[in-house]
Amino acid sequence: MYGLIGKMTAAAGRRDELAAILLAGTRAMPGCLSYIIANDPADADALWITEVWDSSESHQASLALPAVRDAIVRGRPLIAGFSNRVETTPLGGVGLPRAG
Amino acid sequence: MYGLIGKMTAAAGRRDELAAILLAGTRAMPGCLSYIIANDPADADALWITEVWDSSESHQASLALPAVRDAIVRGRPLIAGFSNRVETTPLGGVGLPRAG
Repeated sequence: MYGLIGKMTAAAGRRDELAAILLAGTRAMPGCLSYIIANDPADADALWITEVWDSSESHQASLALPAVRDAIVRGRPLIAGFSNRVETTPLGGVGLPRAG
Repeated sequence: MYGLIGKMTAAAGRRDELAAILLAGTRAMPGCLSYIIANDPADADALWITEVWDSSESHQASLALPAVRDAIVRGRPLIAGFSNRVETTPLGGVGLPRAG
């Protein structure tokens, strides 16, 4: 499995709008096992996105899906920056199949 | 919903053993919607744990469950430290019910 954890900072005051675009644009992605969008209660403009994919190839391929491309185009003007990006190798847990 | 993201550093060379304890000890937790344990491919002793609960109360209550208490007791000697802890307010996404 392939995982990503990262913080996305919205333009000032635009977090809710950005989150709505992400929530709508990230359904039905082949190979996506988990894709959770969360507010940061300590930072009014920040979202945390945690992802699990069956492979890094599925993640890469998702970027070409029409719904995802559309979300990127609509979301980009609302994004001030990215930080705290970590790639992971998920092992399993609640809500995931068991690895190995 | 209530979320947690954090990095757990194992004692040198003990990551696999610690991950196995966490994977076994974190099943069937009431109110737990997602609990994913991942290796950090860039840090041989590090795990990332991302959690989503229906409420912070469910998370707090889980710490009293026998299986979780047992995992804490067995895992503690294998843990060198915690870092990068973030509390979040999950909004939804793949693998979760939709909030609001």
